[in-house]
Amino acid sequence: MARTLDIRGLLQQLPLFKNLAERQLEQLAHSCEQCRFDRNQFVFHRGDSASGLYVVAVGRIKLSIPSGQGQAKVVELCEAGQSFGEAGMFLGLPYLVEAQALEDSLLIRIARAEIERTIDSDPSFARRMLVSLSMHVDAMLRDIEAINLQNAMQRVISYLLAQPMDNGRVRLVCSKHVVASKLGLTPETLSRQLHQLVDLQLIRVCGGDVQILDESRLKAWL
Amino acid sequence: MARTLDIRGLLQQLPLFKNLAERQLEQLAHSCEQCRFDRNQFVFHRGDSASGLYVVAVGRIKLSIPSGQGQAKVVELCEAGQSFGEAGMFLGLPYLVEAQALEDSLLIRIARAEIERTIDSDPSFARRMLVSLSMHVDAMLRDIEAINLQNAMQRVISYLLAQPMDNGRVRLVCSKHVVASKLGLTPETLSRQLHQLVDLQLIRVCGGDVQILDESRLKAWL
Repeated sequence: MARTLDIRGLLQQLPLFKNLAERQLEQLAHSCEQCRFDRNQFVFHRGDSASGLYVVAVGRIKLSIPSGQGQAKVVELCEAGQSFGEAGMFLGLPYLVEAQALEDSLLIRIARAEIERTIDSDPSFARRMLVSLSMHVDAMLRDIEAINLQNAMQRVISYLLAQPMDNGRVRLVCSKHVVASKLGLTPETLSRQLHQLVDLQLIRVCGGDVQILDESRLKAWL
Repeated sequence: MARTLDIRGLLQQLPLFKNLAERQLEQLAHSCEQCRFDRNQFVFHRGDSASGLYVVAVGRIKLSIPSGQGQAKVVELCEAGQSFGEAGMFLGLPYLVEAQALEDSLLIRIARAEIERTIDSDPSFARRMLVSLSMHVDAMLRDIEAINLQNAMQRVISYLLAQPMDNGRVRLVCSKHVVASKLGLTPETLSRQLHQLVDLQLIRVCGGDVQILDESRLKAWL
């Protein structure tokens, strides 16, 4: 019983399951699975059967396209409240990406049949699911835009300005390696661009934080 | 009346509206809009308000991300039966891409309110909508993979093998310029790669067609 109450509480806080009827929530909580992943552990690999979707309750998950040559391209970083694995599930195709925990994470896994049952019984859930998928489309379009039409400096500035900011301060929660791959840069190029922004007195780097010194001058580079 | 019957007939043939109840189909046919676009005409520009989605009844539409510098990145080519504009519509955000007719095209435009009404009254429509959005995610992931992890030759081979094939023959329906932008290559690089494949006796180019001479040797390059 404690387990059910716990998952219910988690689900209720997630945007995807907000305003779900009591009965739906209860049924979902009974049928879904809590999964814990240690830092660096894989949630799934490319080619695995996509039989459900995952919602991040706690932690951070990296989605990337692996490559035979060893490099991988980071596609998305999923934070608490976000879901992933929907597209493969709805298409009934194996995952194109691999998912790996960037820190100790708690995920909720919901099987395809449960998602479809909830869609069938609650159209507002279907709409939230459509919004969630649309957010993936939006994020990928911005990624394609950055890689094809922006130079290294512009990619770094766009990335910094898109992060949650606290008093002009951006916390770099991911490693330089992960951020560089997300931006389609080498870690060395990312470092060089950050140094250049420091030299131009546009940012200051202090530990894992970046202080934005002049947002309007930064934006003028875009 | 003739207009309604015509749109109904068109809708019924499109994957998104298959198996829709008579009443739903009738209501959609009454509320949606037929729009004709000449070759090269824009359907919408980046930044336009995304108040509905489009389904291609006849023709071919190019979705691309424009750039201040004049180049643009082709993101997707939508053929008859495919829909576009969903993500912006569901997020209530302006379009990130621009849509342009590659040939004389007939589109059906459905307003957001109509889509939401149909989702609310028919869960199977919501599911088909989710599949349609998932296909966009899948296409974009493959695009990101090609641009980040494949060399020029591999991108050209992947593109050729993904096209509908008739007796080993691929019809190049889009201009070299469009295909090159889709693959993140210059038109000159695309030409060079095609010539190299001809020299290697892997393909033969005849007019607007490419004859695949040795599919397994082509695949060995990937």
